[in-house]
Amino acid sequence: MTISMYQASVPRLANALRNLSNVLDKAQAHIDTKKLDANVFLQYRLFPDMLNFTRQVQIASDTAKGVVARLAGVDIPAYEDSEVSIEELKARITKTITFIEGFKPEQIDGTEDKDIVTKRSDKETHYKGMQFLLGHAIPNVYFHASIAFSILRTNGVEIGKRDYLGNP
Amino acid sequence: MTISMYQASVPRLANALRNLSNVLDKAQAHIDTKKLDANVFLQYRLFPDMLNFTRQVQIASDTAKGVVARLAGVDIPAYEDSEVSIEELKARITKTITFIEGFKPEQIDGTEDKDIVTKRSDKETHYKGMQFLLGHAIPNVYFHASIAFSILRTNGVEIGKRDYLGNP
Repeated sequence: MTISMYQASVPRLANALRNLSNVLDKAQAHIDTKKLDANVFLQYRLFPDMLNFTRQVQIASDTAKGVVARLAGVDIPAYEDSEVSIEELKARITKTITFIEGFKPEQIDGTEDKDIVTKRSDKETHYKGMQFLLGHAIPNVYFHASIAFSILRTNGVEIGKRDYLGNP
Repeated sequence: MTISMYQASVPRLANALRNLSNVLDKAQAHIDTKKLDANVFLQYRLFPDMLNFTRQVQIASDTAKGVVARLAGVDIPAYEDSEVSIEELKARITKTITFIEGFKPEQIDGTEDKDIVTKRSDKETHYKGMQFLLGHAIPNVYFHASIAFSILRTNGVEIGKRDYLGNP
């Protein structure tokens, strides 16, 4: 008995994204109750040269769709990064979940040693499938979900680690 | 070809902890250069009712030793939570890595369906091994490493996501 690449990716990434979406619901409820400007949250950065809340959510989504598409060997769908509301960020998360859950286990399984190459400006980075999933994509998604959580938390939204973890 | 429970746990947790230790080195260097009081960082919280930096590091360590011990079916070593310096936090991380890397794959492999029960005051939570690892422990370690990262980052330590991710 072992873990398949599918089990270690799609359901885990979808769970992380669903939990992030639930955290967004709590942010929206907080904003509505206190009659606040949602942009204050969406544009908030923990530090001037860190990415804002909207980018944290977008990158969590990008990382999830990117790893699943790469493992399955299909083109990564490009999203416009045009979200300007919590509702739109939630829609992006839903679209990402629908995309990754559209794959069948047999499209992902067996990709442990698959060569994965990422490009960032001129720099290529080479990974094997399992290394890319467990050492790059998964920690990245949790990082951006945690930073998004921190931004809301430091701005008074009443969320706890249980919201981030959801139902494992 | 699949992923073993060992592959999904020990090397991944050890890598996350090593990266956290490297981040601590950068924090220490920043403190030394700027001649700051390390306690300002160790006690810093992102919000008054969040845990401070020291606790974030301690819990990352606790989660890592806890999941590996539980999967292997051995007692979880108790640490004193007495760290009062970055050097001591680094020593705790090293001790945790030594503990988890002391297990052989055959002690962890095959625990996908093992019953895991956690207790928090009166509440018991039941998990299966793979669910506990992938849905509870791993996101928890990355959460606390990310919050620790955020605390340093918001206090001017020059670290980036690459430090958190390390060499996957």
